[in-house]
Amino acid sequence: MSTTVIQQAMTSEAWDAVLITDPKHVYYLTGFACDPHERFLGLVFTPDHEPTLIVPALDADKAREVSSISHIVTHSDTDNPYVILKQHLPGQLNTLAMEKAHTSVSNFEALKQAVPAQQFADAGPLLQSMRVIKSADEISRLKDAIVCIETVLDNVVKRIKVGMVEIEVVAELEYEMKKQGAEGPSFSTMVLSGPNAALPHGIPGRRRIQEGELLLFDLGVYLNGYASDITRTFAIGEVDKETERIYHTVLAANEAAIAATKPGAAFGSLDQTARQVITDAGYGEYFTHRLGHGLGIDVHEYPSVHGQNTDILKPGMVFTIEPGIYVPGKAGVRIEDDVVVTEQGVEVLTSYPKQLISIGK
Amino acid sequence: MSTTVIQQAMTSEAWDAVLITDPKHVYYLTGFACDPHERFLGLVFTPDHEPTLIVPALDADKAREVSSISHIVTHSDTDNPYVILKQHLPGQLNTLAMEKAHTSVSNFEALKQAVPAQQFADAGPLLQSMRVIKSADEISRLKDAIVCIETVLDNVVKRIKVGMVEIEVVAELEYEMKKQGAEGPSFSTMVLSGPNAALPHGIPGRRRIQEGELLLFDLGVYLNGYASDITRTFAIGEVDKETERIYHTVLAANEAAIAATKPGAAFGSLDQTARQVITDAGYGEYFTHRLGHGLGIDVHEYPSVHGQNTDILKPGMVFTIEPGIYVPGKAGVRIEDDVVVTEQGVEVLTSYPKQLISIGK
Repeated sequence: MSTTVIQQAMTSEAWDAVLITDPKHVYYLTGFACDPHERFLGLVFTPDHEPTLIVPALDADKAREVSSISHIVTHSDTDNPYVILKQHLPGQLNTLAMEKAHTSVSNFEALKQAVPAQQFADAGPLLQSMRVIKSADEISRLKDAIVCIETVLDNVVKRIKVGMVEIEVVAELEYEMKKQGAEGPSFSTMVLSGPNAALPHGIPGRRRIQEGELLLFDLGVYLNGYASDITRTFAIGEVDKETERIYHTVLAANEAAIAATKPGAAFGSLDQTARQVITDAGYGEYFTHRLGHGLGIDVHEYPSVHGQNTDILKPGMVFTIEPGIYVPGKAGVRIEDDVVVTEQGVEVLTSYPKQLISIGK
Repeated sequence: MSTTVIQQAMTSEAWDAVLITDPKHVYYLTGFACDPHERFLGLVFTPDHEPTLIVPALDADKAREVSSISHIVTHSDTDNPYVILKQHLPGQLNTLAMEKAHTSVSNFEALKQAVPAQQFADAGPLLQSMRVIKSADEISRLKDAIVCIETVLDNVVKRIKVGMVEIEVVAELEYEMKKQGAEGPSFSTMVLSGPNAALPHGIPGRRRIQEGELLLFDLGVYLNGYASDITRTFAIGEVDKETERIYHTVLAANEAAIAATKPGAAFGSLDQTARQVITDAGYGEYFTHRLGHGLGIDVHEYPSVHGQNTDILKPGMVFTIEPGIYVPGKAGVRIEDDVVVTEQGVEVLTSYPKQLISIGK
């Protein structure tokens, strides 16, 4: 299917071939996950031939086993992979589309030496336009990654006790991720207690969890190559009234942005909707970041959900909605969900409860 | 000092300016660690001006606080950073040296649009030649990272019990790393038990540690931007005679390579020395990887210590010596030290005992 999209782009853009070298994009297009390190990995599309996958000899068996590509070519450390690449490109090569943001100048010079194309176009925008609309298979993988992280969070939250150290909780979470079969955290796991949760770039440390404060969890996993990302904030025992008010303001902003999520809306309007709720409650200056970001094979990918983004929501787009309020020295609250735009409106993929839950007893 | 080396290169290579954009190299040259994400970070050297550091506005305070550079220029998300860069380059720009392996084609095109240099040279080989010889300060940072990981290993090894799961031990190790103040693991922590340790690309899993087998630890941390990397293999209770013989063969190979480490020797000869010991003992076919790799701000950096490397050892070079024997279905043993070449010969930086230690009781 994605092959069809690339074939159509070759026709409409008058590209004679497309070369994909970002390992994430090779995985995206073939199902073959590979870290070639310094070695060459390339997926070649031409108008009149099935796609060719060029892989290091070391990785050939795995490529044959798991990739959707039947035409696989290997190279050893003594080969010049660009010479092998040339053999699988059209003889008459006017324009070669490649990934300019994922190709180093050194590799580009080696490519140009072996491959005499007249022009080199950028396939980056095409890949971005493909990735931003998730397929049913991708959405089910994202759901699996979300179920995994919600199970991890639920299991560890039950074990939280007053006096535990933030980094101790991080260790428990990351162990639980491995137990649940995750490939690993999708970003550096955050567990922030009390005033630490109010720091814009808080890092889990040696602080002990205390009665009467908030505990913020921001975490996710990679599973089958797709990322999850969820934030929940809990009360350790009872918290004061203002802290509760901050919590409910963030929750209202989160719900308002979800309610505004539907095909045809602009990304900027979602950020503005959430920000308005927080501003009206008097906390506008404490919502110091964008509303969210795209989610898929990268934990942060296009689109960026900020107030100036005029791009339009379309069915199949998946992103986070994560408003927050951070009052220095007092408290930090963030509530983050992962959502997919549907034909009708929105499906919230995260299902962990969002009311203020008291833990640590 | 490193500034002097770069000034000398500008003269000898007839470069009009040098642009460093790899964040690791900016850290290496200025002490300022920064992840600019998609934003531009650049360190500019010119013959007749002190170095200029161009940083995202967000990171300016930290750059002023920690970097060794007094001339700091900032750019915001609405600026074209390459236009700002141009203002700090010589008006008459014949050759600009930049990092071709660390610059994407997209960024290079943006650079060329703003900066009309006649030629673009590659500063990569210069940086590599600088990095391969470690300064006294770098060696002391490497020693700190090694002390940290050896403390972590020692603390966790004491807690190993028969029946523990591999990934549970990984979780304990990574928690201990954080407790010891590490920035994080320098690579994916490996704990492999029994036959798992004999797999070339073993990954810690749900396997339980059993009496009478080996347990292999390969781990390291980043501390102050420098990496450590150590492997030790332990006996769980008592192991059979052949397993002991495999262990002592690997230890002999490790010691032989260390004994051969001195200025003037070729890297290849170290690999050959270790391999000969293992081959003579009848396990040659089971030593399936190179002897080691360079260690510094990257956990795997130049040089590669393999049999065909004819490069010559010089004082200040730091690398790993990690022979191994992997008998499928039976046992895997690897013993890895970090060493620095000295004027006289070698200093072994790792100090964790290397005799076969029995644990798990």
